[in-house]
Amino acid sequence: MKKHNFSAGPSILPQEVLKKASEAIIDFNGLGLSLIEISHRSKDFIAVMDKAQALVKELLELPEGYSVLFLQGGASTEFLMAPYNLLKEGGKAAYLDTGSWSSKAIKEAKNFGETIVVASSKDKGYSYIPKGYTVPTDADYIHFTSNNTIFGTQLKEFPGGDVLKVVDMSSDIFSRKLDFTQFDVVYAGAQKNMGPSGATLVIVKDEVFGKSGRVVPSMLDYAVHAKAGSMFNTPPVFPVYVSMLTLEWLKSNGGIEAIEKTNIEKASLLYDEIDNNPSFLGFAAKEDRSNMNVTFTLTDESLKDKFDALALAAGISGINGHRSVGGYRASIYNAMPIESIQVLVNVMKELNK
Amino acid sequence: MKKHNFSAGPSILPQEVLKKASEAIIDFNGLGLSLIEISHRSKDFIAVMDKAQALVKELLELPEGYSVLFLQGGASTEFLMAPYNLLKEGGKAAYLDTGSWSSKAIKEAKNFGETIVVASSKDKGYSYIPKGYTVPTDADYIHFTSNNTIFGTQLKEFPGGDVLKVVDMSSDIFSRKLDFTQFDVVYAGAQKNMGPSGATLVIVKDEVFGKSGRVVPSMLDYAVHAKAGSMFNTPPVFPVYVSMLTLEWLKSNGGIEAIEKTNIEKASLLYDEIDNNPSFLGFAAKEDRSNMNVTFTLTDESLKDKFDALALAAGISGINGHRSVGGYRASIYNAMPIESIQVLVNVMKELNK
Repeated sequence: MKKHNFSAGPSILPQEVLKKASEAIIDFNGLGLSLIEISHRSKDFIAVMDKAQALVKELLELPEGYSVLFLQGGASTEFLMAPYNLLKEGGKAAYLDTGSWSSKAIKEAKNFGETIVVASSKDKGYSYIPKGYTVPTDADYIHFTSNNTIFGTQLKEFPGGDVLKVVDMSSDIFSRKLDFTQFDVVYAGAQKNMGPSGATLVIVKDEVFGKSGRVVPSMLDYAVHAKAGSMFNTPPVFPVYVSMLTLEWLKSNGGIEAIEKTNIEKASLLYDEIDNNPSFLGFAAKEDRSNMNVTFTLTDESLKDKFDALALAAGISGINGHRSVGGYRASIYNAMPIESIQVLVNVMKELNK
Repeated sequence: MKKHNFSAGPSILPQEVLKKASEAIIDFNGLGLSLIEISHRSKDFIAVMDKAQALVKELLELPEGYSVLFLQGGASTEFLMAPYNLLKEGGKAAYLDTGSWSSKAIKEAKNFGETIVVASSKDKGYSYIPKGYTVPTDADYIHFTSNNTIFGTQLKEFPGGDVLKVVDMSSDIFSRKLDFTQFDVVYAGAQKNMGPSGATLVIVKDEVFGKSGRVVPSMLDYAVHAKAGSMFNTPPVFPVYVSMLTLEWLKSNGGIEAIEKTNIEKASLLYDEIDNNPSFLGFAAKEDRSNMNVTFTLTDESLKDKFDALALAAGISGINGHRSVGGYRASIYNAMPIESIQVLVNVMKELNK
């Protein structure tokens, strides 16, 4: 039976990417060797790294002056790398608190100095995005999470002002057209719209290198990785390769503009059902709804067993809500076909019959 | 043509491991989903992580009181995690300098406090292992590299004394029987004897948690990862899975004792040829020779083109020496069959005809 994979991450990847990745494990580029048993300094792998970086720049329309890095450690390591690289001794960091991941980032920043929360939506269970807050002009940077995977909210506008912008874009990068020149550091764990877990995309404006003035350990220093072309040490070869394949897939399918159109269509299909079906209730404030993670609950909890059984029978996988929220979460990343969302919508309609 | 893969790392893996890994990219455990698109909190992946950890404990005969972690960032990140976790403010770290990787570890430790080099073989191009040095009894720990991939030397005995022992075992872990209870922290990048790049095995004696007394960022804190069962954040799913497969392969082939016997046989075959063939000269001091990385040069450089052509024609790949040393390096890790070494030896004999 065909599975419909709504997993929040690691999550669905394009079938053709999986096929190519599987083949490269046996024989890469006709070398007679596996992708994962050749030197990362070989010309075949250097070509992979170069192409992955070039595709990021092309798809996101990054101008000169930005470095593209494929690091390890996930967004969680960026929670500490951001202050290590940007927060001066005696300086001040500003954070927008929109959920669990923001909170974790704030916790790590506090180890490095004064950390101000400019606004938080914790008062209503992170079901909305705060607006109308002020960013202190003397902050070393403002940090925000563009999409909140757990709560299903998404920033439609970003903080402005003359302060460095650091954004955790783990769960919606490559999903919508944005002006990346407004950001100074963008980071994203690979395992949503890019590839398997184990690689972390970091985009850094070269102007910010050394901003904190701290002695930064080599592996935590953006400048060190940028100077080495993201090959300061052995990179995570397989996750980088699969990321490259996914970015090729995205480009061949029309790039960001095309995928954004599809993503809006996909999300609307599901949100419309939630809003029109009396058995379901959306979790996030309507104006802040995420086009990547759709969170909802049953209006009548006694229907849970029936809904779960219908979903299982339809081949639907991974729609349980995060343990901290409960309910349901349908993650509908770039690689999710609209047909799978239609299957879920049909099950929701079926429940209400 | 069959390739004989002598790459220093990422390096050769068992063929049956590559086959299973390739299949799991398409369909894992018959789930109808790829290994790399399911949640790391799913029972199928938790079983992988549990098994990988259990196999490490079993194969290395680790007693109670040690935690086994699969982290990201490579040995290079451990260069800073070791002092962060173990070196007290105002304390002292001791290092044995046996090559490029030791030197890099020393450089990172210096950011955290006083760092003493107890002995170095830099005077002779790192071609031997220093002996007869003294470890200061007031050091917070002594750090050493068990095998020097670039220079082809290997520690046959380890520093003793009543001080914590930290060992970088990246290029010879799982290759020989050792008493692991003598070590407090053991780390190893996966990409030699364990799996693809992107996972780092860290074995920590639980007694050392919090030893440095520093505020350690969560992602750099051994205790945080141990408490979370190596799932504090999304682990590198694919590298962990392939590592598990390789450890299963090792166990089914007789474990460490059997592989050590084979490794000695393999290394002897090649070193005997180097010692008996007038066209070749071994690089490392005989008593310190590595059974993993065999380094040698031509006695007559004018034979280089001929030797390279013979090797290429025989399907030999990855034997160029590291750029900092030159000459040749044959890396003969666990997965390297003795047949491939015989092919190399035949080429060496052929050169001398």
